[in-house]
Amino acid sequence: MKFEYIHDPSLIENESFRQIRALTDLEHLSIEAQQVAMRVVHSIGIPTVASQLRFSENACESGIIALKAGAPILCDVEMVKQGITKRMIKTDPLCFLNAQGVPEQAKESGETRTMAALTAWLPYLEGSIVVIGNAPTALFRLLEMINQGAPKPALIIGMPVGFVGAAESKQALWEVHQKLGVECITLLGREGGSAVSSASCNALLRCIKGELY
Amino acid sequence: MKFEYIHDPSLIENESFRQIRALTDLEHLSIEAQQVAMRVVHSIGIPTVASQLRFSENACESGIIALKAGAPILCDVEMVKQGITKRMIKTDPLCFLNAQGVPEQAKESGETRTMAALTAWLPYLEGSIVVIGNAPTALFRLLEMINQGAPKPALIIGMPVGFVGAAESKQALWEVHQKLGVECITLLGREGGSAVSSASCNALLRCIKGELY
Repeated sequence: MKFEYIHDPSLIENESFRQIRALTDLEHLSIEAQQVAMRVVHSIGIPTVASQLRFSENACESGIIALKAGAPILCDVEMVKQGITKRMIKTDPLCFLNAQGVPEQAKESGETRTMAALTAWLPYLEGSIVVIGNAPTALFRLLEMINQGAPKPALIIGMPVGFVGAAESKQALWEVHQKLGVECITLLGREGGSAVSSASCNALLRCIKGELY
Repeated sequence: MKFEYIHDPSLIENESFRQIRALTDLEHLSIEAQQVAMRVVHSIGIPTVASQLRFSENACESGIIALKAGAPILCDVEMVKQGITKRMIKTDPLCFLNAQGVPEQAKESGETRTMAALTAWLPYLEGSIVVIGNAPTALFRLLEMINQGAPKPALIIGMPVGFVGAAESKQALWEVHQKLGVECITLLGREGGSAVSSASCNALLRCIKGELY
C-alpha cells in the first residue's frame, strides 16, 4: 500500500492557487478582491461560490488600511478567531461569546449568545474589522446597532452560514451597507462559515505582507 | 430600517433542522448517520453534499462507543479542535500542530506541519477519534502509519478540504479502510473543512446525549 502525494507545503499552496485561479472567474475583481475570492474558494473547495461574493466599493482598501493600523478584529465565534493567521497580526482577535454576563444576558432576553455578545463589542467597534462567520443574528444585531448610531467598523466581513436567517442577513447587509455608510464583503446565499470568513480577513492581511497569488 | 428575524436559539435550531431534513436525502442512512449528515449540511449550508458522505459499516457505532468511554479526540488543526462542542466532552481535544519540535521536524523533512504533528499522535491513537478537517497530508500520513502497524483509531473522520490531495486523500481512506481494519466517515470530493469535520464528531456526541433531530 503506497500513497503518492505532495509533502512540501509551498508546492501544495502554489499548485492549489494555480488551480483555483484557473477554475474561478476573477477578472472583474481588483487584485485585492481576487485574493479574497481565491482564499474563500480555497477554504470551501468550491470555485463557483466566487460568483456569490459581493464587495462594497472600498471594502478591501478600507479593510487593509485598518488592519495595517492594528485595528481590533471582532469575531462572532471562537472558530473564526482561531482561523485568523496569528503571525500576521499584532494583537489577538476578540470574541466575547463566553465573556462575563453574555450567557446570562442571552438567557434573560431569549436571544442567541452571539447576539448578546455584541453589547461587549461597542467599545471596539469604531474603525474595527468585524468578521461574522457563524451567526446571522449577530449580523442583524450589528446592522441594528449601527442604524441606531453605534460606531462604524472599517469593514464588515459578513458570511454566516446556514438555513435560518443566514442568506437573509447577508442580503440585508448588502442592501443597507451604503445607507449605513459601511464597507462590507459578503457571500450571498446559504454558504459561508468560519473558514471562508477568516480566510477573507487573512487574504487582506496577506495583501499587506505582499503575499499574493 | 427594521429587520425581521428569529432571536430565539432553540427556534432557530429547530427550524434549521426541519429545513435540512426536508431538503436532504437521508432515508438510506441509520439514525446516527442521519444526524451526522444533517450536522454536515448545517455547517456547510449545502444539502447536496450529503450524497458525498461515506460511512464505513460500523463507523457511528464505533465512534459513539469510543466517545462514551472518553477516548482522545485527535484534531489536525486548531479550528477543528475549537469546533468540538466542549460541554459534551470530559477532556479537551488534542492538536499537536504547535507542539514542541513539530515545526522544526516539518522544516527539516520538507513536509507540512500537520503531517509532522502525527508523530505526536502515536501515544493516543489506539481507540481514539481522529478528526481531520484541513490537511490531506495528515490523512495520507495517518493511513501510512496504520499500514505500517501504528495503533488503530476507533473512528477516522476524514474530511480535508481543497484542491491538492484533498479529494485524493479521502478517496484513499474510503478505498483502504477495510483492508486497514478501520472505521471511517468521509466526505468525497473537494468539499470539507474544519466545520463539517467537527460537526460530524459533534453529531455523534449529541447521539450519546439523546439530542437528535
